[in-house]
Order: sequence, then C-alpha cells, then structure tokens
Amino acid sequence: MKLYSYFRSSAAYRVRIALNLKQLDYAIQPVHLLKNEQQQEHYLALNPSQLVPSLTDQDQPFTQSLNILEYLEERYPTRPLLPTDLVERAKIRAFSQTIACDIHPLDNLRVLKYLKHELAVNDEQKNQWYQHWIIEGFKSLEKQLKSSNGQFCFGTDATFADCCLIPQVYNAKRFNVDLSDFPKIQSIDQYCLTLPAFLKATPEQQPDWE
Amino acid sequence: MKLYSYFRSSAAYRVRIALNLKQLDYAIQPVHLLKNEQQQEHYLALNPSQLVPSLTDQDQPFTQSLNILEYLEERYPTRPLLPTDLVERAKIRAFSQTIACDIHPLDNLRVLKYLKHELAVNDEQKNQWYQHWIIEGFKSLEKQLKSSNGQFCFGTDATFADCCLIPQVYNAKRFNVDLSDFPKIQSIDQYCLTLPAFLKATPEQQPDWE
Repeated sequence: MKLYSYFRSSAAYRVRIALNLKQLDYAIQPVHLLKNEQQQEHYLALNPSQLVPSLTDQDQPFTQSLNILEYLEERYPTRPLLPTDLVERAKIRAFSQTIACDIHPLDNLRVLKYLKHELAVNDEQKNQWYQHWIIEGFKSLEKQLKSSNGQFCFGTDATFADCCLIPQVYNAKRFNVDLSDFPKIQSIDQYCLTLPAFLKATPEQQPDWE
Repeated sequence: MKLYSYFRSSAAYRVRIALNLKQLDYAIQPVHLLKNEQQQEHYLALNPSQLVPSLTDQDQPFTQSLNILEYLEERYPTRPLLPTDLVERAKIRAFSQTIACDIHPLDNLRVLKYLKHELAVNDEQKNQWYQHWIIEGFKSLEKQLKSSNGQFCFGTDATFADCCLIPQVYNAKRFNVDLSDFPKIQSIDQYCLTLPAFLKATPEQQPDWE
C-alpha cells in the first residue's frame, strides 16, 4: 500500500493512525500541498479532488480519509477499529463525522487561502475563524464523550473516533485553542500520544516533516 | 422512526431519499433552523451539534447524515444502497464524502451567517463563495462519474451517491450555478427526479415547506 500524505494534513494523519493500529505495511509518498503538488496530472488521476490523502492498494486508488478507514476496516478486519454493535458503530461514526464534516472542512488550507485572497480577511480574523469552528465542534465532541473512560473515545479499544480526534487536537494546539473546557478531549489526547501507533503517525515523525 | 428534518436542509434531504428508497416508515419532525429550534434543550439532548438531521429508531438517537445512511444500511439491509464489492463501495463513499465533507460544510447556513455577521461579507461575495465550493466539488464529481450510464451515479441501482448528489444539485440550482460543464450530474439529476423515492423527499413535498 502507498499512502499519499502531507505531514501537516490532519486527514492524512487520520489514515496514518489507522494503518498503524491495524499493523498494515505502507509506504509514504509525500504530496507537498504548499508547492501545489496535489494539482499535478499524475496525482489528479488518483484524486480528482486535489486533496490528500489518497491510498493505493492492490492497484486501486482510494480517496477521502473516512472512506479509506471504512475500506481498510472491510478489507482488513483484523484489529478492528469499529465494534460489532450497530448503535456503538453509529456513535463512533457520528463523532468522526463531527470532525470530518463540521470542523476540518472549514479550516482546510484551501479555505484559509480563499479567505485571505478572495475576501481579504486579515490574520487575526483568520485565526478567529479557525478557532471558532474548532471550539463549536469540540463542545459537541466533549458531550459525545460523556461515557469515555478518558483513555479512548468509545469503549476499551481505539476506533475511527480516536483516529480523527488526535489530528484535530494537534491542529487546535497549533492554533492555540484553549482546551480547558474539554477535559475528556485532553485526557484522550494525552493517553493516545503515549501509544506507538499514534506517535508514529504524528507530523513530526513523517519523512516530509519540515 | 422519527426524522428531525428541515425542508431546505440538504443533509436531511439525503436521509429522506434513503428512507424512501428503503421503503422504511418514518414520521417527519420539523426543526426550523431559521427560528433556531436546533438550539432548544430537548433537541440538544438528541443532537449536541445543533444540526439537522437526527433520526430516532428503537429509542436511540442518530446524528450526521452519512452516519445515518450507514446505520440504515446495516440495520435494514433489504433494498441495499451499497453494493457488496469493496472497491465499488469505496467509490460510492468517496463520492458521497466529496459532497458531505468538501462542498456542503462550506455552504451550510451557520457558515453563511458567520461570513455575513463576523466578516461583513456582502451578498455578492457570499454568493460567489457559495458557488465556488459547489463548482470546485462538481469538477471532481463529474470526473468520478465517468462510468455512469447517466441514470444513477454508480451501477444500475440508487446508492448513497445519489442520495447525496440530488440534494446538492438542488442547492446548486437554487443559487444559479451554471451546470453546463457537468452533463453527467445533470443527467443523473433529471433521471432521479422522475422516481417517487426522490420526488417525495424534495423540499417542496415536506410538511414544513414554506
């Protein structure tokens, strides 16, 4: 498997965690978003949305991070990242989508570029925008975590939810979001970042880290 | 089942189509987003993100439209909305997430409100923003549809992809997006809107239509 990744992309970071948790072998192929490598023709053939991550497996391309997680779960069910109970699966997917549909799309690089170049938004306003959508989303996530034991998001094993949460917290810390109102999120983040599967996926551990 | 819905919400519209395609019985409970009914306490207990849709089934609440589609597929596998082949499933999910993660979150009501009230964006700029993210997304979707026969998005049956596409095209038409560069999208939209499951889900057919 080859993962097309950018060290700072939180969507790619989700997939790196999942691959590590499932102990699947993969090679990282960096795609430098600031150098617009995602717009090059050979990459567009893999990913017409010009976004990372993409995964190739058995000569097939896969795009969209949550879709890649679902694919990995279906193709490689060993070391599952979803439980079998349908209600629990739904809680985990809802949590993951709160991040992937409600927070991250608004703080994506292409959106920040649009704000700056098309709407002449200044740096302070841009940072407020970035923080606003994280805080709104984290309020919901913290409520969704009410049954968490403070180690993983749901139950006693890592799931899609943890694959999504840790990269989003990384972005929150990078933009100095005050996390004091979110004790469960902080606790889970601290715990997961003691585990090799999560540590190996951090931006700092990537071959394209700058 | 009870679906908490707003007639104009394209995320709720996705779930309405899926419920109709699966021929499941459900009652609509309107949540008026412009009257901020999504912020009322009894609704927050169902959906801490203050968004529609939510679904209740067997006394359990479910949020996030794509998650609800996955839940319905797992709980009620008759009249499937995903094929069994893992690569085909992944194509359909990637397509659906292009809409649910890359287009819709940017054009959501709460985002348009933020642009207007916090960033003093004028109506023309707001419309350009709205159209920009649809057009960027539709360029990718049209490429992803290269194998479509012009009736459904993938294969010979309706899938998650059609549940997501038709509501997004509704929004595009509402905001006067020029669709002439997207012939596959147009063809699929026209075909699906001849089918009762899709027609019954349109905003105009909802009890809260204004």
